Amino acid sequence: MSGSQGLNLQDLAAVNESAAFNDMAGFEVVSAGGGHAELRMIWRDDFTQYAGHLHAGVIAALLDTACGFAAATVVGAVTASHFSMNCLRPAVGPYFVSKGTTVRAGRKQVFARAELFAGNEHGEMSLVATGETLLVPTGN
Amino acid sequence: MSGSQGLNLQDLAAVNESAAFNDMAGFEVVSAGGGHAELRMIWRDDFTQYAGHLHAGVIAALLDTACGFAAATVVGAVTASHFSMNCLRPAVGPYFVSKGTTVRAGRKQVFARAELFAGNEHGEMSLVATGETLLVPTGN
Amino acid sequence: MSGSQGLNLQDLAAVNESAAFNDMAGFEVVSAGGGHAELRMIWRDDFTQYAGHLHAGVIAALLDTACGFAAATVVGAVTASHFSMNCLRPAVGPYFVSKGTTVRAGRKQVFARAELFAGNEHGEMSLVATGETLLVPTGN
Amino acid sequence: MSGSQGLNLQDLAAVNESAAFNDMAGFEVVSAGGGHAELRMIWRDDFTQYAGHLHAGVIAALLDTACGFAAATVVGAVTASHFSMNCLRPAVGPYFVSKGTTVRAGRKQVFARAELFAGNEHGEMSLVATGETLLVPTGN
Repeated sequence: MSGSQGLNLQDLAAVNESAAFNDMAGFEVVSAGGGHAELRMIWRDDFTQYAGHLHAGVIAALLDTACGFAAATVVGAVTASHFSMNCLRPAVGPYFVSKGTTVRAGRKQVFARAELFAGNEHGEMSLVATGETLLVPTGN
Repeated sequence: MSGSQGLNLQDLAAVNESAAFNDMAGFEVVSAGGGHAELRMIWRDDFTQYAGHLHAGVIAALLDTACGFAAATVVGAVTASHFSMNCLRPAVGPYFVSKGTTVRAGRKQVFARAELFAGNEHGEMSLVATGETLLVPTGN
Repeated sequence: MSGSQGLNLQDLAAVNESAAFNDMAGFEVVSAGGGHAELRMIWRDDFTQYAGHLHAGVIAALLDTACGFAAATVVGAVTASHFSMNCLRPAVGPYFVSKGTTVRAGRKQVFARAELFAGNEHGEMSLVATGETLLVPTGN
Repeated sequence: MSGSQGLNLQDLAAVNESAAFNDMAGFEVVSAGGGHAELRMIWRDDFTQYAGHLHAGVIAALLDTACGFAAATVVGAVTASHFSMNCLRPAVGPYFVSKGTTVRAGRKQVFARAELFAGNEHGEMSLVATGETLLVPTGN
């Protein structure tokens, strides 16, 4: 990430591609701007935990990335210092959508939160996890 | 995971292999018992975020798994409901060690915490992240 | 708290009075029902931290209580196991309003979140803190 | 709090007295230095929740203050941005001891954690809650 100004969808799509994990996982930035960002990921059989649901690490990656991209639309490059999540329901489905929102963008810290939805074959989505990230602007 | 009794190293190595993400990521259970569990992972170039450090999702996966395995040595199968982590320093190094500890094992909930260390080529380790997981025994 | 069914405003006002801290602090339950609860507290000069803002402990009490009461409207008596909060802005003003919402009410665990607003003399409110509580139904 | 250098026991005792809530609650700073701080509070009948245990808000106040004072011994004045706690057991007993430790003191953020113990009449202490605070140095 570069630029002390907020990043746009094109910027964040480039950031997303430059992150090897995001690229490998197939994260797609579908919208970004005005303190919000939305990611999408298609189900992968090699991303499960022992019971066959989406692994907590991948849930965390989707929530944390949506928070970081949402914050970056406001303040530019950021780095995460604290992350938390609630796993509300088993995360299963053909695809996932993660929606991040900036709650408060201060000079030293940015607070963002995100919701992860599992989609089904009928296009219906159910909330499976929520997360929060506390980010620090890196100013570059 | 199965068994309402605590799981041992052999049990958890099998659980670890049965989790597709852990297997793909190369997580190795190096010790487990008495409320503790330790995982090891070798650096992977495809697991980075945009700046070339280990991705927050993989840090979360290592911390959360160490917490879950530590809890499982006491109460058997568990599922995570809440997870949080602090990213203290950039997570870089040829390998990582995640050490989980059970803080309190109640009937309804188990509290566990973990520390993630980055190792270097001299065998020195530095603390790069800490995490906590709140788990629910699943009784199977 | 008693009753395995959800509690109503009258029930929660009684619970609130029976809690010595809430009574001493002057917490008032202004609405409760359908997974939501709202508390109000008037500024107190003896509730500040060193800089003269509302003390983090009182912010936590207001957020956690709103979460617990919101959850109690759905599942009855609960006890908190995990709580977290973000302090977004200095908490100062003649009164405070804390709004709790149930995010997910499971059989074993309930997830709730809350927002704390500081009111001013013109009746305008600004968001000063957010919080989350993970609760366990006590079934009595 | 003042001074960009670390504060000592005498400084923190003064800070503690200048915080109206701490003074009203009877918090006592019993030790502070080298990244650590310890508080003590005598049981108060007007500090309970509905079941007669110490109120979550007071637990939070004790944990958060111990974290802040521990951090202040290293970096001077700080302000909390994120706080979390785990309530492990009912908090009851004639007195409480809260022990804070600095985990990582960066230029922009300080990570601290704390443990709250309930003492009994035989001088035995049991761990009743753990907490974490993320703090920002205020530089004054």
